[in-house]
Amino acid sequence: MTLPRIGVSLGDPGGVGPEVILKSFSRPEALPAARYLLFGSASVLDREARELGVKPVFNDAPGADREEGSFGLKDLGPPEGPAVRGRPSAENGRASFRYFEEAVAAARRGELEAVVTGPVSKTSWNLGQIPFRGHTEYLEKLYPGAVMSFWSDRLSVALLSHHRPLSEAVRLVTRENVARLLRTLGESLERARPGGHEYLVAGLNPHAGEGGILGTEEQVEILPAVEDARRAGMRIRGPLPPDVVFREALDRPERVVVALTHDQGLIPFKLTSFETGVNVTLGLPFVRTSPDHGTAFDIAGRKAADPRSFGQAVRLAAALSAGVF
Amino acid sequence: MTLPRIGVSLGDPGGVGPEVILKSFSRPEALPAARYLLFGSASVLDREARELGVKPVFNDAPGADREEGSFGLKDLGPPEGPAVRGRPSAENGRASFRYFEEAVAAARRGELEAVVTGPVSKTSWNLGQIPFRGHTEYLEKLYPGAVMSFWSDRLSVALLSHHRPLSEAVRLVTRENVARLLRTLGESLERARPGGHEYLVAGLNPHAGEGGILGTEEQVEILPAVEDARRAGMRIRGPLPPDVVFREALDRPERVVVALTHDQGLIPFKLTSFETGVNVTLGLPFVRTSPDHGTAFDIAGRKAADPRSFGQAVRLAAALSAGVF
Repeated sequence: MTLPRIGVSLGDPGGVGPEVILKSFSRPEALPAARYLLFGSASVLDREARELGVKPVFNDAPGADREEGSFGLKDLGPPEGPAVRGRPSAENGRASFRYFEEAVAAARRGELEAVVTGPVSKTSWNLGQIPFRGHTEYLEKLYPGAVMSFWSDRLSVALLSHHRPLSEAVRLVTRENVARLLRTLGESLERARPGGHEYLVAGLNPHAGEGGILGTEEQVEILPAVEDARRAGMRIRGPLPPDVVFREALDRPERVVVALTHDQGLIPFKLTSFETGVNVTLGLPFVRTSPDHGTAFDIAGRKAADPRSFGQAVRLAAALSAGVF
Repeated sequence: MTLPRIGVSLGDPGGVGPEVILKSFSRPEALPAARYLLFGSASVLDREARELGVKPVFNDAPGADREEGSFGLKDLGPPEGPAVRGRPSAENGRASFRYFEEAVAAARRGELEAVVTGPVSKTSWNLGQIPFRGHTEYLEKLYPGAVMSFWSDRLSVALLSHHRPLSEAVRLVTRENVARLLRTLGESLERARPGGHEYLVAGLNPHAGEGGILGTEEQVEILPAVEDARRAGMRIRGPLPPDVVFREALDRPERVVVALTHDQGLIPFKLTSFETGVNVTLGLPFVRTSPDHGTAFDIAGRKAADPRSFGQAVRLAAALSAGVF
C-alpha cells in the first residue's frame, strides 16, 4: 500500500495553528496513516510543545515509508524578530506565508498529494506585505478554476463564487460558469469516490424562480448546465429552491449542495457546522484542506483550542488524496 | 381585562387547515384567553370534526366577553360544488379566499385586533381566478408597507423584500427602504413590548462588504439607516456579516434579524425552524399571523397534521395584539 504524502503548513505562529497541530500529531493514532510533512518553525513548535506538555513526534526528515506512516518536519527557520502571540504581526505574516508557499511548491513538484493549511491571519499577511488576502486567493492566482467547498458531518457545500459583491455574484451565474464548476466537482470528487455523491444545485431566486415569475436564471443558465452534467453521468438535481435545498442535504453526507453565492452557502454551513467544518479547495492538481476556523488570537497560548476541525481537515485530505473518500 | 378579538380564517377546505384548527380549538385550554371568531364553513368543520372524533367548541355567534374567552363561528356557507380534499380546486380556492377576505374586512372595520390565517393553496386561488398569489400579496395591495417576518423558538427574521428576483432584490437595498422597514418593526414590535427586542441587521455582501472591498451597500445604504434607527431609540446592531448574524440570533428570542432578501432570511429560518415557525405580517393596523406550513394536500384527511405551528400562530397573535408580547 502506498501511503498519501500530506503536507501541513503551521499557520500563523501567533495563533492557535501550532496548538491544534501539535495536539493532533501527539495522538497520531487518531489520524489516518500517511507520510506527513510539516512546514513550519522548530522554534515555534518547541515552545508550544513545552507549554502543552506534549512530546512532538516529528523527525527532522520524512521517515521511511512504513505502513503506519511517518511524521517529518521541514524546518524553515524561526520567524524574524521577537516572538509574538495573540495578535497579528508582520513577522508572523511572512513566516506563515512562507510555510504555506513551500508546502504548495512541494505539492506542485509532485512531492505531496495534499496540503492541509493551518490558520493564517489576513491582517498579519497584510502587515507583512504579502500581496494575497489569504490562502484561497493565492491558489486562485495559480489555478483560476479553483473551487471553494465546505464539509462537515452535517452539510457539504461547494461555492460558484465567494469573495464578490452580491450584485456581481449574481452576474456570474452563467451556464458556462455553472458547467465549469460542475465539471470541477465531477473530476475532483468522482475520481476519489465514483458515483459516491449526489449533487443538489441551488437556484438563485426565491422558489428557484417559480417557473420564471421570480427570475429567469434558473431556466436560462442553471438548468441547461445541470442537464449537461446529468448527461455526462453525474447524479444531479436542480435548480432547487434555495430555502429547501439545504434541508434536503442536511445530515445526508453523500449530498453536496452547489451554492451560487458566498452567503447562500455559508449561512447554512456556519449555522449547522460552526468550527467543526473543513474548507476544501477543489480543482487543483493536489488536494487542499484547512480547518474552518481562524487564528483565534484571543485564545492563543491558553491551551483551550479545539483540534477537531484540524483533525477532520487531515482526514478529508487523506481520504480525497488516497481515492478512498 | 379586555380580551383580544382574534379572527381565524379556515384556509383551503381541501388541505390541513380545518384539521389543525379543530385540533387546536378542541383543547382551548392550550390557547390564550381571547374572543375567537372563525371564518369558514360549518359543513367543512362538521365533516372534519366527525372524522377526527372531536367536538367543536364553536357557537353560532361570538360568546359573551367572559374572562376565559369565547369561540364563535362566522359560517360563510359551504364551498360550491362537491367536496374536494387532498388537491387544489377552484371551489376551495374561492371559499378560502372568501374566509380570508371577510376576516380581513372585519379587522379593518376595527372588530378584530388580529387575524390568524389557515393555509391556502396558491394553485386553488389561481384555479378559482382569485387575482392574488396568496395572503401576503393581498395584504400588500391594501398596505404597501407590509413586512413579512418569521418567528420560531429558535430564530426571528424580518424580510426587506420577499417575492422578487434576486437581482431586483439587491437594488431594493436602499437607505430609504431599510429605514422604512426599521420604522415598521419599531412601531409594531416596540408597541407590544417596549425595549424588548434587539435588532440585528444583516449585510448584503460577503463579510458585510468588508469595509467596501466586497460591496458598498453596507456603508452607503444600510449603515446610515441603522444609525438613524439607533438615534430614534432602537436597540440595533449592524450591518453584520450575513454568515455570522444568524448564529448571533439563534436561540436568543429577544433578537430579531433584519434580512435583506427572501433566501438570506428563509434559508436559516427553514433550516432551524421547519414547520414549527409562524409567519407574521407587520405594518398593518391589525396583527396577522399564520402557521409556516402549507395546505399539505398529501396528508389532508389522514389525521396526521401537526397543530403546533397553528397554535404558535394563535399565541403570537394574542401576544402581539394584547401588547404583552
